[in-house]
Amino acid sequence: MVDDRIDGHLDVLKDLYPHTGRGWIVGVTGNPGAGKSTLTDRLITLWRNEQKRVAVVAVDPTSPYSGGAILGDRIRMQRHFDDPGVFIRSVATRGALGGLSRSAVDIVRVLDAWGADVVIVETVGVGQDELEVTRMAHSTVVVAAPGMGDDVQAAKAGILECADVFGVNKADREGVDATVRDLELMIALGRKMIDSRGAQQRLADEHGAAAQPTTPCGGAGDEWVPPVVRCIATRNEGISQLAECLVAHRQWLTASRVGAARVQQRLGDQIRNQMRDALLDAATRDIGPLIDGAVASVASRQIDPYSACEQLVAAFRRPGR
Amino acid sequence: MVDDRIDGHLDVLKDLYPHTGRGWIVGVTGNPGAGKSTLTDRLITLWRNEQKRVAVVAVDPTSPYSGGAILGDRIRMQRHFDDPGVFIRSVATRGALGGLSRSAVDIVRVLDAWGADVVIVETVGVGQDELEVTRMAHSTVVVAAPGMGDDVQAAKAGILECADVFGVNKADREGVDATVRDLELMIALGRKMIDSRGAQQRLADEHGAAAQPTTPCGGAGDEWVPPVVRCIATRNEGISQLAECLVAHRQWLTASRVGAARVQQRLGDQIRNQMRDALLDAATRDIGPLIDGAVASVASRQIDPYSACEQLVAAFRRPGR
Repeated sequence: MVDDRIDGHLDVLKDLYPHTGRGWIVGVTGNPGAGKSTLTDRLITLWRNEQKRVAVVAVDPTSPYSGGAILGDRIRMQRHFDDPGVFIRSVATRGALGGLSRSAVDIVRVLDAWGADVVIVETVGVGQDELEVTRMAHSTVVVAAPGMGDDVQAAKAGILECADVFGVNKADREGVDATVRDLELMIALGRKMIDSRGAQQRLADEHGAAAQPTTPCGGAGDEWVPPVVRCIATRNEGISQLAECLVAHRQWLTASRVGAARVQQRLGDQIRNQMRDALLDAATRDIGPLIDGAVASVASRQIDPYSACEQLVAAFRRPGR
Repeated sequence: MVDDRIDGHLDVLKDLYPHTGRGWIVGVTGNPGAGKSTLTDRLITLWRNEQKRVAVVAVDPTSPYSGGAILGDRIRMQRHFDDPGVFIRSVATRGALGGLSRSAVDIVRVLDAWGADVVIVETVGVGQDELEVTRMAHSTVVVAAPGMGDDVQAAKAGILECADVFGVNKADREGVDATVRDLELMIALGRKMIDSRGAQQRLADEHGAAAQPTTPCGGAGDEWVPPVVRCIATRNEGISQLAECLVAHRQWLTASRVGAARVQQRLGDQIRNQMRDALLDAATRDIGPLIDGAVASVASRQIDPYSACEQLVAAFRRPGR
């Protein structure tokens, strides 16, 4: 019902909302092949051992949770499918206009209301979809792996915005030191840019400093510095350290001024995004034929799309249509 | 100016619009490491040899065109930077709410108006951003490479929606036959699903048929079947075949009923998306303080976000505020 967005789904979501807000929403993202699913599997086991109720929302089409993985992964995950304390839900609406993020956000809220202590949201990449989903996560781990070449670069543009913890998986592979160093350099540069005290000399200083390992769990006064944690998910190594960093991040969010501001900021972004969709829904409902007419006019080049949009927005707001 | 979206940029875009519509917009997408940039480089050279004016919009953060690549790539691309018949523009606004696709779409229109015969739009992945950008492309090539494991799977969800031609690059590598077979199977299954005549038996028949190579250039009556083209971009092998398929696709778009319907469909999606952004812009301008107030109310859990959005939409439409 929440998926289908049929009439009445909004009432369900409104009624559920007062029951949300208790769960800890953890984002797991990164490119295909980094080992996100195995890492998620380990985190589930770890939190289940602490008697937590765990929900997984798989937006990643390569994830075994969403049905996109090879047989071996599926078998490995089977135990969680059988565990009544684990709720797994895949989201397969990728492709629709705004469809993915909207239903993912709603499903996370439903799982939160269900009583999940932790809701893990697994996404792939750093596109708009992922940013939208990680925007609702309290704490997000970006999973990287050595030897994936362009991956860190690919992620660069959006990675600092959404990464609270970096997990460098497959840490027994060649090139792991380079991957860790790249990430630490990126974090250092990003902080410099955010600080905007970035004179060339300072940047150069920071390059040197970046070679040193970051603090174990990210806290640096009021500021959060994403820690870089090495792990080997297949052998369950480094997973508890990763989980500790995530817990530390959650504490930072509630305990620090900057953390509280970030929560507020992300909520604002979320509501603006939700409002954007609600506005288009209302416009489609009320002036659907006008929109179709405008598309035809733009197609026949009688009007440019910018003017057409302005006229549609004005028509939507005009009383007494 | 178009990037910055400052006041007056809309007027520029409106004035430019009558000069657009002549250029052929070609999307190049695929995961990092598939060799998109080298392939783009070869396509530029090929079309420059035909005296075409070529523009490149690089949305891909790993692309040397957008400044994200290693030194070797940069040097290889240098010749195009020096060619006055090539216009290269990177888009680096990834991360903003709707920011990436909006400015990319506008920049493509500007380059079209500049007089580009071909506008190549290079994007990475298959997220919402990429769908939005490929939605405005006339013909899109999805670049895959053997031995990248999950890549085809990762792309699956959105790939059939945006792929007009598949380029299997690095075709001298081990595993190329498997990659081609996977793609052909996916195309066959996708067509079956679209046809919705998909009884189990028919699906099984199609599996067998998928092992045979697809037609060289995609045309199958009125329907377009994405051809799978092997190439080795570093050696300039298979590039002219790929370009031929893209040209055939362009002809199909204008000559066939289904093609014309697709153009119309994509334009409609584009305008709806543009309208969604325009509505939020107008709302932010007119009821900004109300939105901020709603965010604060949701943050303090006095109201749920769904009801808050409904109230904001109603407030936006109320006359005489």
